[in-house]
Amino acid sequence: MRTLIIGGSGFIGRNLAAMLGEQEHEVFVLDRVPDETDSTGTIYIVGEAQDSEIIYSALEQSDPQVVYHLAANSDISAGILDASLDFGDTLMTTIALCQALERHPVETLVFASSSAIFGNVGGPIAESIDGFLCPESWYGKAKLASEYVIEAFSHDHPQTAILITRFPNVVGPKATHGVVYDFLRKLKADPNKLQVLGNGHQEKPYVHVGDLIAGIEHFRSQAVAGDVLRVNIGPTDTLTVREIVAIVTRALELSPEVYYEEQEFGWVGDIPKYEFDATRMRDGGFVIHASSAKAVDRAVRDLIAEA
Amino acid sequence: MRTLIIGGSGFIGRNLAAMLGEQEHEVFVLDRVPDETDSTGTIYIVGEAQDSEIIYSALEQSDPQVVYHLAANSDISAGILDASLDFGDTLMTTIALCQALERHPVETLVFASSSAIFGNVGGPIAESIDGFLCPESWYGKAKLASEYVIEAFSHDHPQTAILITRFPNVVGPKATHGVVYDFLRKLKADPNKLQVLGNGHQEKPYVHVGDLIAGIEHFRSQAVAGDVLRVNIGPTDTLTVREIVAIVTRALELSPEVYYEEQEFGWVGDIPKYEFDATRMRDGGFVIHASSAKAVDRAVRDLIAEA
Repeated sequence: MRTLIIGGSGFIGRNLAAMLGEQEHEVFVLDRVPDETDSTGTIYIVGEAQDSEIIYSALEQSDPQVVYHLAANSDISAGILDASLDFGDTLMTTIALCQALERHPVETLVFASSSAIFGNVGGPIAESIDGFLCPESWYGKAKLASEYVIEAFSHDHPQTAILITRFPNVVGPKATHGVVYDFLRKLKADPNKLQVLGNGHQEKPYVHVGDLIAGIEHFRSQAVAGDVLRVNIGPTDTLTVREIVAIVTRALELSPEVYYEEQEFGWVGDIPKYEFDATRMRDGGFVIHASSAKAVDRAVRDLIAEA
Repeated sequence: MRTLIIGGSGFIGRNLAAMLGEQEHEVFVLDRVPDETDSTGTIYIVGEAQDSEIIYSALEQSDPQVVYHLAANSDISAGILDASLDFGDTLMTTIALCQALERHPVETLVFASSSAIFGNVGGPIAESIDGFLCPESWYGKAKLASEYVIEAFSHDHPQTAILITRFPNVVGPKATHGVVYDFLRKLKADPNKLQVLGNGHQEKPYVHVGDLIAGIEHFRSQAVAGDVLRVNIGPTDTLTVREIVAIVTRALELSPEVYYEEQEFGWVGDIPKYEFDATRMRDGGFVIHASSAKAVDRAVRDLIAEA
């Protein structure tokens, strides 16, 4: 299978490229930079994914059966301060891609959406909720707008099967950001002190990137031409930031002073508490192997092993 | 006819509300502020149009047959410096509206899009062009994304007729911004001096708001449920900024020193030259009465009479 990963040098893209490479698929990546951690024979096309011309020429060069759209601003809090990050990298990449796909159609498009499109909702987040979607961050707004763009594309291009997956927090090897990555980085700089964003009671589901990619591939094969399949991929349990602190410090065998803030959110626009409803995921025959606690524990060991 | 104008206190909205009022339609406006220039019996609902709940309650209160979506950031150059202006006021208002319309459908939705969605193209701008759309400004990007959002909405709600009109520069009475408004404001402050943005050779079509609204109403009646009708409404001739300077100074009987900049654009993200292809407009049976020059001349007299 020939594949093109838009934004394939980021955290999830790197892991996806490696996994597809191991399964002997042909992997092309379009990203601003090649991934220096790669060793799988991926072909990197260096270019700006906000530009339809560049995506189009990447499609012509790779002629993929499957396109994975993972390009996005990954620093949600930076995006809150500067909306152009998400307007550009998260939304305009989607519009540029859909324009390019009009000229070079593919069999399947996989889009990485996010739980952030829902904003603060009471109770577990299902694929459809009874109420208006009010994303808090520009990131969530850009992902929501991207879903509309892809839906409009789907109606005009019924030959393409579309999978929209919605992720919770993702952890694992080759990380470039996120709470686990942050804690390890901070404790490496100063093993005696850990400053935490927020009061530590933030409570969210965490999925290991290995489970996530297995889920993406599972549902990719279920996506049907002319339709948009939306699935949450993540565990139904949650973990508090304080529990993550405990897992990280135990793994490092450290006992730092831990400093929390008073606010209940990690940054303005953060969703401090949410849960996933995984009914559709389970009904579709997919099981997440690692609970949130196991996912974080594995991710800590992955990242320590890399260091 | 019951109508709701989202963003009805802005330049075009004010004129539309007045015209609909004169024709004895019921006019509701949702905007952050009521329009102090209004005298037509419009009912103002003061609220934030980025919020689906607020739009939904405005729909419930007004129960309109027709919704006009004119809410947008009108300061394109400010939006270039701060993308959140267009991400919020231009795009998220569209998403909020479509979410609200899912719960309270209407017969007709009219959306004010823009020539800015096309970016720099060679030759006259038609409704569809042979190439990728590359808007220069966040404003143009937000209008383009909004068109996708509305297209996705249309496919899911075939009971609603949708008209997307694309405007060039609009001039006329009750203006709140724009080149004519700017020149009059500057010359009122100092009749001896006029500082112009750009080198004055910027060359664009200008439509008088009266013609524009007549065009909107003409094509609104042609919009068909389940379809999206896209029409450019504007003249095919153009006017340079230097010609506008001449029209304004002649009307005011002033001879100021005029200072131009070296750059060919008025601001970063400005499209310094474009023309409209009005084939579809003419084929649809609508004629613009005022050329660009006449539109600007009338607008100058409108604004002088108001002052």
